[in-house]
Amino acid sequence: MNEVEIGRSKRAVTGYAFDDIAIVPTRRTRDPEVVSTGWSIDAFQFEMPVIAAPSDSAMSPETVIALGKMGGLGVLDLEGLWTRYEDPTQQLAEIANAKDEDATSVLQRVYSKPIQAELIESRLKEIRAAGVTVAGALSPHRTAEFADVVLRSGVDMFVIRGNTVSAEHVSKDTEALNLKEFIYKLDVPVIVGGAATYTAALHLMRTGAAGVLVGFGGGAASATRKVLGIHAPMATAVADVAAARRDYMDESGGRYVHVIADGGLGTSGDLVKAIACGADAAMLGTVLARAAEAPGQGWHWGPEAVNASLPRGQRMWVGSHGPLEQILTGPSDTSDGTMNILGALRRSMATTGYSDVKEFQRVDVVANSYR
Amino acid sequence: MNEVEIGRSKRAVTGYAFDDIAIVPTRRTRDPEVVSTGWSIDAFQFEMPVIAAPSDSAMSPETVIALGKMGGLGVLDLEGLWTRYEDPTQQLAEIANAKDEDATSVLQRVYSKPIQAELIESRLKEIRAAGVTVAGALSPHRTAEFADVVLRSGVDMFVIRGNTVSAEHVSKDTEALNLKEFIYKLDVPVIVGGAATYTAALHLMRTGAAGVLVGFGGGAASATRKVLGIHAPMATAVADVAAARRDYMDESGGRYVHVIADGGLGTSGDLVKAIACGADAAMLGTVLARAAEAPGQGWHWGPEAVNASLPRGQRMWVGSHGPLEQILTGPSDTSDGTMNILGALRRSMATTGYSDVKEFQRVDVVANSYR
Amino acid sequence: MNEVEIGRSKRAVTGYAFDDIAIVPTRRTRDPEVVSTGWSIDAFQFEMPVIAAPSDSAMSPETVIALGKMGGLGVLDLEGLWTRYEDPTQQLAEIANAKDEDATSVLQRVYSKPIQAELIESRLKEIRAAGVTVAGALSPHRTAEFADVVLRSGVDMFVIRGNTVSAEHVSKDTEALNLKEFIYKLDVPVIVGGAATYTAALHLMRTGAAGVLVGFGGGAASATRKVLGIHAPMATAVADVAAARRDYMDESGGRYVHVIADGGLGTSGDLVKAIACGADAAMLGTVLARAAEAPGQGWHWGPEAVNASLPRGQRMWVGSHGPLEQILTGPSDTSDGTMNILGALRRSMATTGYSDVKEFQRVDVVANSYR
Amino acid sequence: MNEVEIGRSKRAVTGYAFDDIAIVPTRRTRDPEVVSTGWSIDAFQFEMPVIAAPSDSAMSPETVIALGKMGGLGVLDLEGLWTRYEDPTQQLAEIANAKDEDATSVLQRVYSKPIQAELIESRLKEIRAAGVTVAGALSPHRTAEFADVVLRSGVDMFVIRGNTVSAEHVSKDTEALNLKEFIYKLDVPVIVGGAATYTAALHLMRTGAAGVLVGFGGGAASATRKVLGIHAPMATAVADVAAARRDYMDESGGRYVHVIADGGLGTSGDLVKAIACGADAAMLGTVLARAAEAPGQGWHWGPEAVNASLPRGQRMWVGSHGPLEQILTGPSDTSDGTMNILGALRRSMATTGYSDVKEFQRVDVVANSYR
Repeated sequence: MNEVEIGRSKRAVTGYAFDDIAIVPTRRTRDPEVVSTGWSIDAFQFEMPVIAAPSDSAMSPETVIALGKMGGLGVLDLEGLWTRYEDPTQQLAEIANAKDEDATSVLQRVYSKPIQAELIESRLKEIRAAGVTVAGALSPHRTAEFADVVLRSGVDMFVIRGNTVSAEHVSKDTEALNLKEFIYKLDVPVIVGGAATYTAALHLMRTGAAGVLVGFGGGAASATRKVLGIHAPMATAVADVAAARRDYMDESGGRYVHVIADGGLGTSGDLVKAIACGADAAMLGTVLARAAEAPGQGWHWGPEAVNASLPRGQRMWVGSHGPLEQILTGPSDTSDGTMNILGALRRSMATTGYSDVKEFQRVDVVANSYR
Repeated sequence: MNEVEIGRSKRAVTGYAFDDIAIVPTRRTRDPEVVSTGWSIDAFQFEMPVIAAPSDSAMSPETVIALGKMGGLGVLDLEGLWTRYEDPTQQLAEIANAKDEDATSVLQRVYSKPIQAELIESRLKEIRAAGVTVAGALSPHRTAEFADVVLRSGVDMFVIRGNTVSAEHVSKDTEALNLKEFIYKLDVPVIVGGAATYTAALHLMRTGAAGVLVGFGGGAASATRKVLGIHAPMATAVADVAAARRDYMDESGGRYVHVIADGGLGTSGDLVKAIACGADAAMLGTVLARAAEAPGQGWHWGPEAVNASLPRGQRMWVGSHGPLEQILTGPSDTSDGTMNILGALRRSMATTGYSDVKEFQRVDVVANSYR
Repeated sequence: MNEVEIGRSKRAVTGYAFDDIAIVPTRRTRDPEVVSTGWSIDAFQFEMPVIAAPSDSAMSPETVIALGKMGGLGVLDLEGLWTRYEDPTQQLAEIANAKDEDATSVLQRVYSKPIQAELIESRLKEIRAAGVTVAGALSPHRTAEFADVVLRSGVDMFVIRGNTVSAEHVSKDTEALNLKEFIYKLDVPVIVGGAATYTAALHLMRTGAAGVLVGFGGGAASATRKVLGIHAPMATAVADVAAARRDYMDESGGRYVHVIADGGLGTSGDLVKAIACGADAAMLGTVLARAAEAPGQGWHWGPEAVNASLPRGQRMWVGSHGPLEQILTGPSDTSDGTMNILGALRRSMATTGYSDVKEFQRVDVVANSYR
Repeated sequence: MNEVEIGRSKRAVTGYAFDDIAIVPTRRTRDPEVVSTGWSIDAFQFEMPVIAAPSDSAMSPETVIALGKMGGLGVLDLEGLWTRYEDPTQQLAEIANAKDEDATSVLQRVYSKPIQAELIESRLKEIRAAGVTVAGALSPHRTAEFADVVLRSGVDMFVIRGNTVSAEHVSKDTEALNLKEFIYKLDVPVIVGGAATYTAALHLMRTGAAGVLVGFGGGAASATRKVLGIHAPMATAVADVAAARRDYMDESGGRYVHVIADGGLGTSGDLVKAIACGADAAMLGTVLARAAEAPGQGWHWGPEAVNASLPRGQRMWVGSHGPLEQILTGPSDTSDGTMNILGALRRSMATTGYSDVKEFQRVDVVANSYR
């Protein structure tokens, strides 16, 4: 443990962000062509270890489908604009056109419209009809309310995603979600988070989740640190939760829970580092919001930015860099890490001599003495 | 001890600022509604662990009263404009309208007018008449001079606040303030500081103080570091003084001295971290100077900025962000940590599973490998 | 080992960049006139420990010759514009005149023209005719294809340079380059790299290479870190590879393999630090691209910037600072470390009391507590 | 020792700059009025531990005299403009009016005029006539040439100052300065440097010097780091040399050699920290160049900036902040640490409870976890 003493009555572990580390080639090299970036969770197989963050700026029913057809996993936010409005085109335009100083207020207003259960149903059916894996996300405190309609509509995977999700939530409300019971009853695999420590993640694993989201999401668009004082340096968080995966596999007699990095991932280099720290896959928001097809039209925001009384994120300009397919598989015409994400992962694995994602979790990393 | 060797003849302890650390959720979560942010010191109870810094930019008699009615503790600077001028409206306008290069000179001139004892009396009576807790602040070297009029005017709490206050001051003047005797004779609780180390704070606790201010105040508006070379990384200072509180409680057979972070607190995240390091409450200047009602009209300065021969602070633009009530309890329409300070504290406690401020002092923190 | 724990399942060594360290004079001083900056590798002797990076922005056949005549070693990129075009004047102008947002696309287009074997031959003969040491560079995956023509054309030294080069490359292609066999058969000394770790370099040394390039090249112009997540803090990389040189000398019964820093070297101070960390010489791109004679006309780019599907570098403005000779040997009229590179090395050695480059590898360095 | 491993073949000590540390009040406080800032070296007594850096931008014969009358020690650069020109007014104007890109060339040209021995004589006599302590500075390689005229002209103190000065200089020239012999023969005390390590300073102390300059001078105006790769984090350098002073005092049976910080001192806070690390006094350039009377007219440059072939510093804009007296003793109307330098030192000592400069060397310091 890299423990330091903050003061005589307080100790802390030192945490590393992705920017604090880098991959180091130390052995054989390999042709990119003989490297596999495939990933599978439960019965589902994907050509890339990429899950879309359920952010309205990145994922509409259309982009969920498009990402699925390209070999990734799209996730629709079931508390987002598509389940509040029959057609959110006007609302997306309002958000895109808002002045910087008004953006948060506009988000708060637009998202104040109630969620409509029938829209949840129709959106999920639309995605299923396209023949891709169907996944929808709810926050923990709305899960009890909307789980039935979600399941009835038919999903292949259920994502329960909040800033921080614990296995043991204390509520004034006696009907609060009991994660373990909920997951136990469910027929579909559940991905749940965020969590950022060994202990928190281990408890989530014990609920029966198929995957744990590491981090608090939101990445560049999140201001959780300034508002709440809460922050998880991502390299450390992923490596800690990967240790929980290993120990839980032992205690459970072999159940492998997927570790999914969620937050702080803005470039292909960040995706590479997440896996190098032990992630099986990464949930990407900013990266996908840069696609020409993204509903955000060059803007990105997460669910935490729309909170009515305490927004912890904001609308951020990320730009429109090119078609989704080019962003994922190239060719790239820039060197800023925003394009050909998978080509970059493939080459990084090749350069360090690894042939699959699971193996690549063992790659050597270096910690920078400064950023 | 995180001791390092600066050179062969000098060692130092490593100090952490609030920006160097972050809160980490590690266990259960909780609804914000089942969290208490209450705080009490001596016989006084408050709904929030917030004391106003006695800065003219933030606290007028009116805002002291307003803050008190909202559940916080306002403190008037008894050496400020309200005790030098019958009506300081014109002086506040002069300060607000000064050009940047003239601001310090204008402050020095405006504050050169002598303090009037009768104004101390009338201001305090005005506050008392409003039915809120009455607290006034003096600097150590004026305390002997004005203590009588303050006590005669009736205060519930006495704040002795200087850049650095020690229990043992060496003066050329034989009538210098003996803190221990002074506090012993007093009927009202005394809050005293700043102090930034275990030893300095322990000595202040032994004078009988009810609370110790940790840090040198001034926060963003202070230039103590550039001018005097003096600086206290606040996370370390608070955690060290919290250790002194624990040890003093033991040596005194149970007297609990409150640890109040004072300086470097510009956002709700900073308030959260101060408590996480062991503070019972925080003295806020910048945060409250951002209120629409603040006399500073968007500017903030502390008492150290008006020194006639060696100013150690300056007039800083902090902006007018909204009504005091919105700043304290929301709703917020920004994600920069300047609004809904208490909502943020409440949610941070909820997210980490703590139900009261005292418990929250035990929350886990992470040290960043870089800022 | 400066090992740190990134998280419970991941450890890392701390890496230092040149900016993180500095030279410290600790003993006698010396007149710059009694210091030698000479360097020899195999049978070749040079007046300066400087090899040009094979970047089209810095090295044309003309500048290769000019550098050779001044006492350094020029290297032509045999996959660059001079082997794709009879006369690349127009292509260089296109690159120089491209707008920033188009620069990568222009590079990709210009470099898409096939390499012509007969141009390799004529360029190398032109250099040989000038009477300087002849050296050309190929990337590992083109070496098998073009090695014959290169050798036939006659080179004194062969440079195999890629982002990362390993002694054991796994390829789908059965005819992939076997470095050890290739070098064994060759009559001319081979310089090979990049490598950035003890182990990777040791394996390269065992192939029979005369020199190993440390780092991934590209320096200021490389975006390898953002795109691939790969990075080698150079001070650490050089010091690690220097240890491999020492150990390999022992295991080989005395074969001395030259350690050549390649990447992150933008100023004379960086060159000094590279040697201080154990380098025998440095491969300079940015520094030489600043010469008035440089083909880049004030722009610098490396081979990694022209990749068709995943560019990992970009065209950077470095400016035209003066004639090549002034940049190398002064006089300088600036204090930014871009001129009189050798004068600076000489003075740094003099100030710390060393009289030759090999000795200077032992100079004391200090690590900065921050940048 | 805070030793770190840069790589497998290189270790380094971690160095701290003044910005990396801060003073911490830990005990009693004191009235500024009962604090002494006096300093004496050899038979000379000063009211302030301040020596002027022999920079033409700060010290003319007039400002040497003025500083002496205010209680400090002025030092004239005997290789500067005043010993090259009868009246350097025009040259100073040329430097002040040069465009940024021409400034170094202008300095090189203006300083190319030979030094005139008779001007050395007349300048020193002018200073002596004013009744202040007379001190002049030569670089080591001109000392042999001009020492006679300097001594004949009559100085109270001799300063030998170069970027790096060692006790054992290796020269091609057999008549090179032997410091030990030179100092032994001299009747006046010698201050010599820079040196930045324990060993280098210890050897300088053994030459018989009365004081050692710590650092490489030049401070903000020096580019030694970029050009030569040489740098000395000043807090560490001062603390290391202070250890040499202690050990040399022991080995010499009680000879106390003064440690004088020289470089990196731009504010009153830096002066305070230099003493806190063990300095007896500080040599100030930037601080004094800000005086209205300074010949630099708001510009500052050091001798290293005028080198004909390898300038290691540049002309820097520091501004004209007020009369020399106000800069030294106030009153200040700014909080940026540029004014009332001595008042700041006095207050810092008072706040930490120390009553004289020697005692203050023991004050506690904190190392920042980041800048």
